Amino acid sequence: MTAPVPMVELWRGGLLESTHTGHAVICDAGGGIVEAWGDPAAVIFPRSSCKMLQALPLLESGAADAAGLTQAQLALACASHQGAAIHTHAVTDWLAALGMGEADLRCGSHVPADTDERDRLILAHEAPCQIHNNCSGKHSGFLTLARHLKAGPEYVELDHPVQRAVKDAFEEVTAETSPGHGIDGCSAPNFATSVHGLARSMAFFAAAEDAGDARSRAAYRLTRAMAAFPEMVAGEGRACTELMRAMDHRVAIKTGAEAVFVAIIPARKMGIALKITDGGTRASEAAICALLVRLGVLDAAHPATQKRLNTVQRNWRGFETGILHTAPGFC
Amino acid sequence: MTAPVPMVELWRGGLLESTHTGHAVICDAGGGIVEAWGDPAAVIFPRSSCKMLQALPLLESGAADAAGLTQAQLALACASHQGAAIHTHAVTDWLAALGMGEADLRCGSHVPADTDERDRLILAHEAPCQIHNNCSGKHSGFLTLARHLKAGPEYVELDHPVQRAVKDAFEEVTAETSPGHGIDGCSAPNFATSVHGLARSMAFFAAAEDAGDARSRAAYRLTRAMAAFPEMVAGEGRACTELMRAMDHRVAIKTGAEAVFVAIIPARKMGIALKITDGGTRASEAAICALLVRLGVLDAAHPATQKRLNTVQRNWRGFETGILHTAPGFC
Repeated sequence: MTAPVPMVELWRGGLLESTHTGHAVICDAGGGIVEAWGDPAAVIFPRSSCKMLQALPLLESGAADAAGLTQAQLALACASHQGAAIHTHAVTDWLAALGMGEADLRCGSHVPADTDERDRLILAHEAPCQIHNNCSGKHSGFLTLARHLKAGPEYVELDHPVQRAVKDAFEEVTAETSPGHGIDGCSAPNFATSVHGLARSMAFFAAAEDAGDARSRAAYRLTRAMAAFPEMVAGEGRACTELMRAMDHRVAIKTGAEAVFVAIIPARKMGIALKITDGGTRASEAAICALLVRLGVLDAAHPATQKRLNTVQRNWRGFETGILHTAPGFC
Repeated sequence: MTAPVPMVELWRGGLLESTHTGHAVICDAGGGIVEAWGDPAAVIFPRSSCKMLQALPLLESGAADAAGLTQAQLALACASHQGAAIHTHAVTDWLAALGMGEADLRCGSHVPADTDERDRLILAHEAPCQIHNNCSGKHSGFLTLARHLKAGPEYVELDHPVQRAVKDAFEEVTAETSPGHGIDGCSAPNFATSVHGLARSMAFFAAAEDAGDARSRAAYRLTRAMAAFPEMVAGEGRACTELMRAMDHRVAIKTGAEAVFVAIIPARKMGIALKITDGGTRASEAAICALLVRLGVLDAAHPATQKRLNTVQRNWRGFETGILHTAPGFC
């Protein structure tokens, strides 16, 4: 097994302060490795980075069209949103259209990352609900599929028809038998794969065609939905949203907990997957920027890039304290 | 240079998800290495873990006694507090007793980590001020010393008498010439040293005597102040506070940004310093617990320990999702 390689460094006062190592693979539509760092065979949990894979059965089954889901809703099904008003309103409306409500969700509640909504809750003395959960869009997709399949309410259980369909789709597009699963923060199963397998699945999405078979068409539509509605995939100020806008909606990208990041690049028919070994999100954001710049689809000088790569760190008085950049030998 | 070693692992669904590497040294009163992992010579920024070193001139100069500082104030001078009411009230009173106010601080403002105080500010439509800065106690100490020395107001500048005294004390107790400095989040200079140097300084504190010379007595008093007032050093729910209580106030410990942690163990006349390479705080907290358990001064079964080591990770619905524990070969 190849060791992870240094990918991102934090410097302060001319000295190296912290280092992040990781694995990354750029894959082509045939599943071949275009370029790799660290160990392509390293087994990882994709966490939220694979939400577009988890949404494939929603479209392939016909459930999305039967429910009349919009492109914005498809983007939300692939989202780790920050519980801002645009997200909570959209999920509330979606559930209502299904004849369901917040209590049908199985994702749990947490304080939203959006500070406006957080402050609104505090001022109104309200507790956050499951709709604020960053995964509530994915779960609305699961509910839509469960209803279409006339399956039971416990849609996050491993043997539920929804999760069985997700696992089948996941293993087919990664082209690997998953070595196991964990339970995600939102209670859904999360299937493990190699970094190569995850990159391969992203290349499948990149090469997908509107005129293809049901799976290819599903992947095509999900990619376009994410790229067209970046604000639904994360939220204002967040990496996924800002970087998809910076790439003029031509590339779909997605972060996952514990520092996973993926990219789908239709124009190049390429997919990227990376994992920072220690789970540090600042490093996965910097590393995906570096790879997207390397492939010529992201402008290194764009403010959304510079916020995350070659980032000058400033303290509470605005003084420059350090800089975050790629490690020598990585991009 | 020896590579950092795996110290802390996060497991999910029976698979390794994330790994943190680091360097650690346990040092005796003679400056010798009792035990080490990774590279004792690795250069690090101690960040806030060295606040008790930065407070030495405050006591040695006579400034603390001239100002009549209490033991709680000495603990606050070594603190990274969370801006709770007990901290902000204490700093406000301290500044008032100096005939100074919030505007004399040079640490900058940030939202307090204490959620009660954060919510109070939101409900009152108030902005946080410099007193909320986690370093405002250290800065009150700097101001106390600056006034005693009749030095100017820009006490965080490198050539100010306060910082010159800090640098001299820092280099003498680490027994190293600092290879450089960076600017900390609170705008004060932060001097680099080796992990061994930082551990050596902690062993000096551990062996310090009330009946010793001015420096030894200063180190003795600061250690006792931290251990006696753990709630002033961090705050409710925080690692430093909970673990010092768990050790019955017999050990002083301190965290620093970018995953540094130190411990002063008077009963063993030993000091510990560790740095997690990637800057991940969850790992520095787990690693210091493991080392304190190893030295027999912390109970592995105490809830404060179990919250940070062998920690079962639970999701928003309370389901077990993973576990954080030490890596094989580390403690």
